Amino acid sequence: MTEPVEYDVVVLGAGPAGENIADRTRAAGLSTALVESELIGGECSYWACVPSKALLRPVLARADASRVPGLAGSAEWPLDTEAVFAHRDYWTGNWKDEGQIDWLDSIGAHVYRGHGRLYGVRKVAVTSPEGEHHVLSARHAVVVATGTRAMIPDLPGIVGARPWTSREATSARQAPRRLLIVGGSVVAAEMATAWQSLGSQVTVLVRGPRLLPRMEPFAGELVAEALREAGAEVRTGVTVEAVVRDGSTGPVTVVLAGGEAIEGDELLMATGRAPRTEDIGLDTVGLPAGEWIGVDDTCRVPGHDWLYAVGDVNHRALLTHQGKYQARITGAAIAARAAGTPLDTEPWGAHTATADTRALPQAVFTDPEASAVGLTLAEAERAGHRVRAVDYDLSKVSGAGLYADGYRGRARMVVDLDREVLLGATFVGPGAAELLHAATIAVAGEVPIARLWHAVPAFPTISEVWLRLLEEYR
Amino acid sequence: MTEPVEYDVVVLGAGPAGENIADRTRAAGLSTALVESELIGGECSYWACVPSKALLRPVLARADASRVPGLAGSAEWPLDTEAVFAHRDYWTGNWKDEGQIDWLDSIGAHVYRGHGRLYGVRKVAVTSPEGEHHVLSARHAVVVATGTRAMIPDLPGIVGARPWTSREATSARQAPRRLLIVGGSVVAAEMATAWQSLGSQVTVLVRGPRLLPRMEPFAGELVAEALREAGAEVRTGVTVEAVVRDGSTGPVTVVLAGGEAIEGDELLMATGRAPRTEDIGLDTVGLPAGEWIGVDDTCRVPGHDWLYAVGDVNHRALLTHQGKYQARITGAAIAARAAGTPLDTEPWGAHTATADTRALPQAVFTDPEASAVGLTLAEAERAGHRVRAVDYDLSKVSGAGLYADGYRGRARMVVDLDREVLLGATFVGPGAAELLHAATIAVAGEVPIARLWHAVPAFPTISEVWLRLLEEYR
Repeated sequence: MTEPVEYDVVVLGAGPAGENIADRTRAAGLSTALVESELIGGECSYWACVPSKALLRPVLARADASRVPGLAGSAEWPLDTEAVFAHRDYWTGNWKDEGQIDWLDSIGAHVYRGHGRLYGVRKVAVTSPEGEHHVLSARHAVVVATGTRAMIPDLPGIVGARPWTSREATSARQAPRRLLIVGGSVVAAEMATAWQSLGSQVTVLVRGPRLLPRMEPFAGELVAEALREAGAEVRTGVTVEAVVRDGSTGPVTVVLAGGEAIEGDELLMATGRAPRTEDIGLDTVGLPAGEWIGVDDTCRVPGHDWLYAVGDVNHRALLTHQGKYQARITGAAIAARAAGTPLDTEPWGAHTATADTRALPQAVFTDPEASAVGLTLAEAERAGHRVRAVDYDLSKVSGAGLYADGYRGRARMVVDLDREVLLGATFVGPGAAELLHAATIAVAGEVPIARLWHAVPAFPTISEVWLRLLEEYR
Repeated sequence: MTEPVEYDVVVLGAGPAGENIADRTRAAGLSTALVESELIGGECSYWACVPSKALLRPVLARADASRVPGLAGSAEWPLDTEAVFAHRDYWTGNWKDEGQIDWLDSIGAHVYRGHGRLYGVRKVAVTSPEGEHHVLSARHAVVVATGTRAMIPDLPGIVGARPWTSREATSARQAPRRLLIVGGSVVAAEMATAWQSLGSQVTVLVRGPRLLPRMEPFAGELVAEALREAGAEVRTGVTVEAVVRDGSTGPVTVVLAGGEAIEGDELLMATGRAPRTEDIGLDTVGLPAGEWIGVDDTCRVPGHDWLYAVGDVNHRALLTHQGKYQARITGAAIAARAAGTPLDTEPWGAHTATADTRALPQAVFTDPEASAVGLTLAEAERAGHRVRAVDYDLSKVSGAGLYADGYRGRARMVVDLDREVLLGATFVGPGAAELLHAATIAVAGEVPIARLWHAVPAFPTISEVWLRLLEEYR
């Protein structure tokens, strides 16, 4: 092993969060190394948001077209799945990362390909695929941004069943005839939407009472209703107890509690995420391996003034855009501490990731789309706020009815009655993903209700639901 | 003529602005009469926003579908124009207003059908279609909400040419083979988009240098480019000097300065709006007939403490949603004055229509859509602000590229460098109409740039352009 190579900042993991750390620390003039064992760009670029949206958008565009007069039968228009897959492949760079490497080169960040492990305080050891070893030392900060992997429960038969995870579900080149999906969260809902339209007969098996359990209840209910109308089966309140697959290409059978057996051709386990922290040397600095890494609002690990964790791995918000947000905040905090300048860690300050807890946005590209920011009614009540939820049926908004014949959707805003600001908002319906950012600005901006009355939605947009929500509130 | 019937509030004109005055004053417990000579619901419901959007949405949905992989040839999918027209007719209630009458009944507003004229201070005379006469007196307020009509320039031959106005263009049941459109503003751009796709060969003749002259220059340029690609002809910098039409059904010829003659089958004059104030008795209270009615920020006419003008007729903002906004403000102001309670007329106060000048939003349903709020760069500079415009090419936003293959569009934010808030924003591209409200909240809410960094756009939405704009600004 050679002498340590010294950088100001060493980042473990070059997904969106790690890349944005590099971007910010390089912009501050700090030398930065990134260590990545897989593709530069991370899960999002190759096996999550990007390929899933590439698969889903044609499905949603066709659905939208089928809901306007004059395009009768467009719901039946054939979707050229080969073209859809080719487009998805294009967007993932065919699972090659040259483009991202070029960008990191252009900002002067140094990339080490290989497996990185903490190696005591401020040190990272890298083993390259060729077996070379490097030790990197970090003058100011080591940032863990290793993300997550799919978590598959330890069911009887699960290993031999070779289930799909989000990776296979987003990168498959052929629709299984029958696709079983276990889980109810975003991956399950989006992949059910995509593959049902791309040719599979989808069955979704949800343990809880509904899909999209982190959103307002109506979100999962509306998405399940639409999936059923599209021909998928959605079963809630079911527990998978075992999985059986014989041979390498045969059907797979899921056995439910109670004994019912359901057969499919592929099985997607969309049962949550686990931190990629098993083998990154956390034990060398006294932290437990395999667990989420707890951090403060600058994403620094308490008790380790040189160690940070950003993105999924800190479990604050498992979303690409939020990992990038944390990276911007943390990058600025690292740069400020390196320069010895004071930090602004007041809520909403430049060096504190306040939005993680107060204004976390998420868009789900199902049909209907679902989007939400901030707290749900239940979360706000649990947090002790004095709140009121205001709901509006989106089908009663002219802009929605003109957007889609028979528009179905719903919006909710959660109002803090003491401060008269929004704590959260949820939109479900065709086009709802792009309705979200208005609410994100209202929540993060803490714009008072009285001022929101002056934010006039243009007629006839779907956004006019804002006026209706305010009227309902009054 | 009978004895005057007394109301707290008398409203001339039952379009969206007048209806919202009734809604707010009735909610405050004031007795309210509305006088309407045409259909309750006004221009917007029957001959503007609603039918135009009903014609345009199928065009845009098909265009959106044609820009995703897997739906090859969808741009050529036949649009069943009869179905589109039938849907448009449904949305206009087949030009009947029973639904709106029912609503006004339900809130206890009294409707007088007929022509209303001011009849001295606090009095309105109504002549019904049957020739009956009523005199209404207003304890607290008379509100003029008579809107606008199409303004047709006095060109040689124009009367005999029987040109279309926005009314005919939105209510026609057949696509003319060749449609000539004179004008460059929203009506011209939207109707060119609609009719070119509904079967006409459209030629747009614009006097100025571009379409959509009130928006940032790139808006009109992108819309014109797309119209040309769709097969329309868009000519800028041309002046129409005369119009010729022989007989009642023959072609119509437009003669340009320089002598060039262009023939079409119908001619739409989209050359602006004039106030409907010629014959409403303004002279009986010392105001000039036929002109826009100047008002203060509560929409009250200076020197007449009982007289208000809301909506298009006051020329503050010729947009349905803004007329409704003014009506909410004015209705509250009338109620407060009637009750003797103090008004809040500070900027953004409950009784002042600040958004008319500071955060006026508009969405244009062309393909691409165009939307804007607040000041353009040129307007901000003219107003003496120290500003910077930040532009971003929407095609470089992942969410946009995933929304539409070959996405073309552009966004601009105009930043007040002294206060570090947005003065305006413009979005052009597929789906841009629903991007607007986020900017409207940011502008009306005066959300500081530093806080907008905490309003994280969800990945991968088109809204992520907000992050790019902030990065460009930094």
